[in-house]
Amino acid sequence: MTLTDIEIGVLGGGSMGQEIISFLTNRKIKNANLVSIFDKDQNRLDNLSKILPANIFITNSIDKFLSVGKIRLVVESASAEAVKQYGSLILNSNKNLVVMSSGVFNDINFLNSLENIAEKKSLQLLIPSGAVGGIDSIKAIKDQIKKISITTTKSPKSLMGALGFKEYENVVFKKEQIIFKGNSQQAIKLFPANVNVSTTLSLVGIGPQKTDVTIICDPNINENKHEICVEGAFGQLNFSMNLHPSKKNPKTSSLAIFSVIEKIRTFCNPHISIGT
Amino acid sequence: MTLTDIEIGVLGGGSMGQEIISFLTNRKIKNANLVSIFDKDQNRLDNLSKILPANIFITNSIDKFLSVGKIRLVVESASAEAVKQYGSLILNSNKNLVVMSSGVFNDINFLNSLENIAEKKSLQLLIPSGAVGGIDSIKAIKDQIKKISITTTKSPKSLMGALGFKEYENVVFKKEQIIFKGNSQQAIKLFPANVNVSTTLSLVGIGPQKTDVTIICDPNINENKHEICVEGAFGQLNFSMNLHPSKKNPKTSSLAIFSVIEKIRTFCNPHISIGT
Repeated sequence: MTLTDIEIGVLGGGSMGQEIISFLTNRKIKNANLVSIFDKDQNRLDNLSKILPANIFITNSIDKFLSVGKIRLVVESASAEAVKQYGSLILNSNKNLVVMSSGVFNDINFLNSLENIAEKKSLQLLIPSGAVGGIDSIKAIKDQIKKISITTTKSPKSLMGALGFKEYENVVFKKEQIIFKGNSQQAIKLFPANVNVSTTLSLVGIGPQKTDVTIICDPNINENKHEICVEGAFGQLNFSMNLHPSKKNPKTSSLAIFSVIEKIRTFCNPHISIGT
Repeated sequence: MTLTDIEIGVLGGGSMGQEIISFLTNRKIKNANLVSIFDKDQNRLDNLSKILPANIFITNSIDKFLSVGKIRLVVESASAEAVKQYGSLILNSNKNLVVMSSGVFNDINFLNSLENIAEKKSLQLLIPSGAVGGIDSIKAIKDQIKKISITTTKSPKSLMGALGFKEYENVVFKKEQIIFKGNSQQAIKLFPANVNVSTTLSLVGIGPQKTDVTIICDPNINENKHEICVEGAFGQLNFSMNLHPSKKNPKTSSLAIFSVIEKIRTFCNPHISIGT
């Protein structure tokens, strides 16, 4: 640890949180120093405490979690509910906040309320690009967007459990098939696993009502595929991501993990920032 | 002007600079207040002074330019040479710096020297994504990249003047034709107009030697097309941009302008940051 190190707390010790914790404890992010972990699940905490150095404080009390050392950044890797429950408390405790579960910001009033606290307190609310790329250019041309869509293709296994997939659960897919076509607002309840990607896209673009979403079930793929198309006066953007699932958390792409790691890295090393 | 406004200087009053100046004087960026403009060309300065409000200081003296008010951010929209000449002076004068002419950072030692000053002075050196999208995800997975390439397609008119196009200047193209295949390092001298895009890509990716560049001449297009392909353990990314040229500066895409505007906006409104 050095004087310039930024003390970090991780909120959520599940599979996503564990990957972030592993990056931090292996000192793979310059100037970042993990000091505190919060989770509600005592089993998880017990398991974490067995493998982590003793100087990292592990707790199921949010107040104790936030009062360790001089935490400047809290990284949420838990759930939309956790952001709803603790988001304002974290900012009001003078901690900057990275939110992975961006789906919570479908509630735009909630986003505005957190942004207001961040502004008043001179803090930052940070949302990584997640499992997609191109958010940099989409936010730059947002005022000119005429049409924006995202098409997600997943295997039946990856879709299993989603409300919108219920009627297909006993179908034997022989080839790819569109199982949903609507807007981001409608997709959210039916396919909650896509909620982070489509919410982030609608936040930087033209909102959930105007963001078209198509979900395709393909029995012949293992990856998650996302395709984003944007049209407007600037021209056309087509971004296609073929992503291997994270080993520890097959419902998430490893890009989503690397994306949050990069956001933490930029926060801890702000002197150079490449990309819009 | 309000108390929270950030005073801004624009370095370079050419066609790119004029578009940025127009955004700023029309108060299209919250909390941003243009106070000073530098250019070496007296004609340009005279023309600017005719159309701009009198409270914006316009000068061909870099020292006077930097000493106006309390400039916190300088936006370079001039040339690689201007960054070389004034970059350290700007940072050493305690101004944050946005660089549009990122091609100058092919000289990685120069980039490091500016980054060091920025770090010592607790300032930021900012480089927007420019005329491409996807820089957000590419920097996130940089450690896993096996292969990265960019293919640029332009009309003969757009390529005219480039050293690498000299042998084709009298050719009548009937269909699209590959006119260059090599790496980013080699492409820079032959096609300097592409230098910003390929440099930014190699900075966030795996360097200029390992960034493959293909340039295609197509007599049947008016747009500039860029296609970026990235492969690695994470999967595959494809970013394709079909961009209309900027009206005022046909050699540049309007996305490059919007990209720098967005970077200024984020600097002036740091309390929320969406995208990696």
